[in-house]
Amino acid sequence: MPGIGPRTAQRLALHLLRQPEEQIKAFSNALLNARTKVGQCKTCFHLTAEEECEICLSSKRNDALLCVVADSRDLIALERTREYRGHYHVLGGLISPMDGIGPELLTISALVTRVSNEKTLEVILALTPSVEGDTTSLYLAKLLKPFVKVTRIAYGLPVGSELEYADEVTLTRAIEGRREIE
Amino acid sequence: MPGIGPRTAQRLALHLLRQPEEQIKAFSNALLNARTKVGQCKTCFHLTAEEECEICLSSKRNDALLCVVADSRDLIALERTREYRGHYHVLGGLISPMDGIGPELLTISALVTRVSNEKTLEVILALTPSVEGDTTSLYLAKLLKPFVKVTRIAYGLPVGSELEYADEVTLTRAIEGRREIE
Repeated sequence: MPGIGPRTAQRLALHLLRQPEEQIKAFSNALLNARTKVGQCKTCFHLTAEEECEICLSSKRNDALLCVVADSRDLIALERTREYRGHYHVLGGLISPMDGIGPELLTISALVTRVSNEKTLEVILALTPSVEGDTTSLYLAKLLKPFVKVTRIAYGLPVGSELEYADEVTLTRAIEGRREIE
Repeated sequence: MPGIGPRTAQRLALHLLRQPEEQIKAFSNALLNARTKVGQCKTCFHLTAEEECEICLSSKRNDALLCVVADSRDLIALERTREYRGHYHVLGGLISPMDGIGPELLTISALVTRVSNEKTLEVILALTPSVEGDTTSLYLAKLLKPFVKVTRIAYGLPVGSELEYADEVTLTRAIEGRREIE
């Protein structure tokens, strides 16, 4: 398992062996339950135990905004900000020819169907600032621009950072991405 | 001296004591020279041994762009990118009422004079994304907008970072600062 080395694995295993049998039964049932019941939302592909996730079903969300993320972890990070109140679409990864991941392995055709059918006015691409993220953003922008306004999140200096210690690529992006002050 | 603790200080002192006398003479002369000769450029307030710095004197720079930074270290960081080819203005700090630093302690009046006299078309505020940086940016924007277009560098996700690990304030800024893909 990720982040668990041999020593931690041994510590956890010995701890589990010391627990009462009922507790271990409950734990393995919970694990099995999670594995069998948690699937993907049929609309946005976020993790959910139902057919459609809470965010897709919510009536308090802004239907005009659709934020595209690589995976559910990114969606959860954006939800933590409590600022974004639109909907999401989880791609299931990023286009990466080096790793053999083409657009057909991602949920891109479902995204295009959503955007062309629903009342989305703006698609926000929230992908990591990397070669794969940029490739995927450009691919999606080309595909979606006939239907909708396409934006991407800002790349630049993170809040609380020092200009002096920023790497050159980030500084270059920050200058390129400068905005007029209203 | 910053970053030099008692142990490092002792190591450096003992090393200097072991050097030949002529070398120490040359070193102390160099120090004294640096201290007496290096001053501020009369135009942009960057460090220089001359009356005006190399950047201000250069004919290869774009006269339409003026980038405002807090201090010379930030200017050097931006120069390392080799992307920005305009001029600079070094404020000498940021407005910080908590530390008793008001606008009058910075080189702001010289900046206003420069902007109103020179052929600057755009002032780029390259200040850190902090309370002091934001305060100073807003103050300068208000002051300079009658003369010139005022922009600020982008705040958002640094290049190579993961959305998942970005702090909430940075993510919020990245969403707020989203841009339309051309």
